[in-house]
Amino acid sequence: MSIPTPIIWKNGQLTILNQHKLPNEIDYAALETIEDVYESIVTLKVRGAPAIGITAAYGLAIASRKYKEQNIASFHLRLHEDYLYLAGSRPTAVNLFWALDRMMGKIENVESVNEAIYLLEAEAISIHQEDEASCKRIGRNALEALANVKKIMTICNAGTIATAKYGTALAPFHLGAEQGREFEVYACETRPVFQGSRLTVWELQQSGVDVTLITDSMAAHTIHAKGIEAIIVGADRIAANGDTANKIGTLNLAILAKQFGIAFYVAAPSTTFDLTIESGAEIPIEERKEEEITTFAGRRIAPEGTKVFNPAFDMSPSELITAIITEKGIIYKQDFNNISSLIGKAGEEVKS
Amino acid sequence: MSIPTPIIWKNGQLTILNQHKLPNEIDYAALETIEDVYESIVTLKVRGAPAIGITAAYGLAIASRKYKEQNIASFHLRLHEDYLYLAGSRPTAVNLFWALDRMMGKIENVESVNEAIYLLEAEAISIHQEDEASCKRIGRNALEALANVKKIMTICNAGTIATAKYGTALAPFHLGAEQGREFEVYACETRPVFQGSRLTVWELQQSGVDVTLITDSMAAHTIHAKGIEAIIVGADRIAANGDTANKIGTLNLAILAKQFGIAFYVAAPSTTFDLTIESGAEIPIEERKEEEITTFAGRRIAPEGTKVFNPAFDMSPSELITAIITEKGIIYKQDFNNISSLIGKAGEEVKS
Repeated sequence: MSIPTPIIWKNGQLTILNQHKLPNEIDYAALETIEDVYESIVTLKVRGAPAIGITAAYGLAIASRKYKEQNIASFHLRLHEDYLYLAGSRPTAVNLFWALDRMMGKIENVESVNEAIYLLEAEAISIHQEDEASCKRIGRNALEALANVKKIMTICNAGTIATAKYGTALAPFHLGAEQGREFEVYACETRPVFQGSRLTVWELQQSGVDVTLITDSMAAHTIHAKGIEAIIVGADRIAANGDTANKIGTLNLAILAKQFGIAFYVAAPSTTFDLTIESGAEIPIEERKEEEITTFAGRRIAPEGTKVFNPAFDMSPSELITAIITEKGIIYKQDFNNISSLIGKAGEEVKS
Repeated sequence: MSIPTPIIWKNGQLTILNQHKLPNEIDYAALETIEDVYESIVTLKVRGAPAIGITAAYGLAIASRKYKEQNIASFHLRLHEDYLYLAGSRPTAVNLFWALDRMMGKIENVESVNEAIYLLEAEAISIHQEDEASCKRIGRNALEALANVKKIMTICNAGTIATAKYGTALAPFHLGAEQGREFEVYACETRPVFQGSRLTVWELQQSGVDVTLITDSMAAHTIHAKGIEAIIVGADRIAANGDTANKIGTLNLAILAKQFGIAFYVAAPSTTFDLTIESGAEIPIEERKEEEITTFAGRRIAPEGTKVFNPAFDMSPSELITAIITEKGIIYKQDFNNISSLIGKAGEEVKS
């Protein structure tokens, strides 16, 4: 039993877990070139905002050491081209730009090509290690919040394979398994893309966590029948008032938690807060293609001409959230009016 | 545009809609023998409690006219064998036994083989016609309850193809389409078996009803984003206090209706009430096989060794139900303590 990690950097060599093949095949692929890195992001071999950022950062490091340019100005020009190339791999991923910008900022004033190459690798490693440390702190804080909880439900995959290690919502289960703390986790399959069945069940099995799969439609009955004591989810974006956008289906669970009188936790790094928006009403909800719902594995499951509504996210209002668990600490509902000062300005680096 | 019907009896010939092939193929199959009828039930060509009961009733009629027995005692013995044979096609279907018992009761004291054959066909036709009339009354009553509703959500397939015609929860939409009343229906796909995508979307399209497909996980966001005004569902079994067992996922919707302050209706014939049980706590919840959740079309969507919880139904407590719409009238929440006298004894025939 061990906690899977999606990204390995060893002796200057980048290896990633090909998440596209999960759960049927556990395939680690070496990424030798920046083109390999680009392709791994585009084809969803790497997924999860933090994991994408880390992989792209290594992509710039890998690219830079192959340049023939010995002139620092030419080096900067060449790196800027590769920066734009990688930025195009997933244009909606905020974490991707954050990581790439951090890499570029690190060598902005560097005069030597060799020093720049050295610093790019070191910065990618820092981004990687900081994410792991941040997730671990989220996990520890979550274990504290869940001190009296054994039976718990989650949705989607806010897991170790979406981050450097440990994940966010799933961090307490991986850390707990290491410490002999036993949870019973109920994973919603997470239609339409099945991140729950394909990814969450797999990664918790790898850590030896007791995990049971249900369909999203079974959440209410399962809470009642199995005595679920809390729900924990990740977040895509959190507004200044605590309103949280996350994978479609999260709002269903937030409402069920209220009805059954159980806690509803959001676990996310402080970088997920967007303090420029006051409430969730300002968060746009992306709609995805119809085929995700009308077909499966190339087979139609709905008639030709079916009208579809396929929102990718929903927004859980802060009044349904018990607490937001970050690497900086647990923010309980009574402090939601004070998030800005607790979290600091948006995008600020994690303080260790 | 016309309302699909799953069972046609014409010139002594039984034809059924093969629901197993929906939505990819619209295939009507002639059932010539009692073996054909048995097979159509076992292989889910016919589904939905009322439709199964009607088909089985015709099955006995078809069988009886082929007997060579001229002696009424031998005829009764032969018919009893076929009764047992058909009863074994779906041993958990209450409606199947109800229909078969009604057929047997009709000829209990008949002395002539010819009269018995005639009465069996007549009784099957009565069962068929009464179900259609009952569904139509449910539809009319539902149209009354939904007088001010346009945007509405449903789950599973409590539809025309599960009954003689019109269905229960979907009856107001089919009837409304005939009358020029325009609904906007949001159909939950209904995992794990996709009755919503495969069946409800198809049959509402056939009637020209405006229907949009969502996954079950999208229900809360859709109610909010699309301004859903009511939810209507069918029922598998209703206790004396109004607690309602229905397809898994129904309880999620009942709780969402409460949170969003919209009406939650159950539509079902009075035969669905089981007045021998006081509350839903006495209704056992069947669990189905793991493969429904871990595989799709033969492909694994969850890892080997996945633990699964797969309840087929859930129970919505009566306090979450606005009204139960039957062929005998609309029973509003304030009358739930008086259900027994409003509905009459369990299994009582519909009064026309």
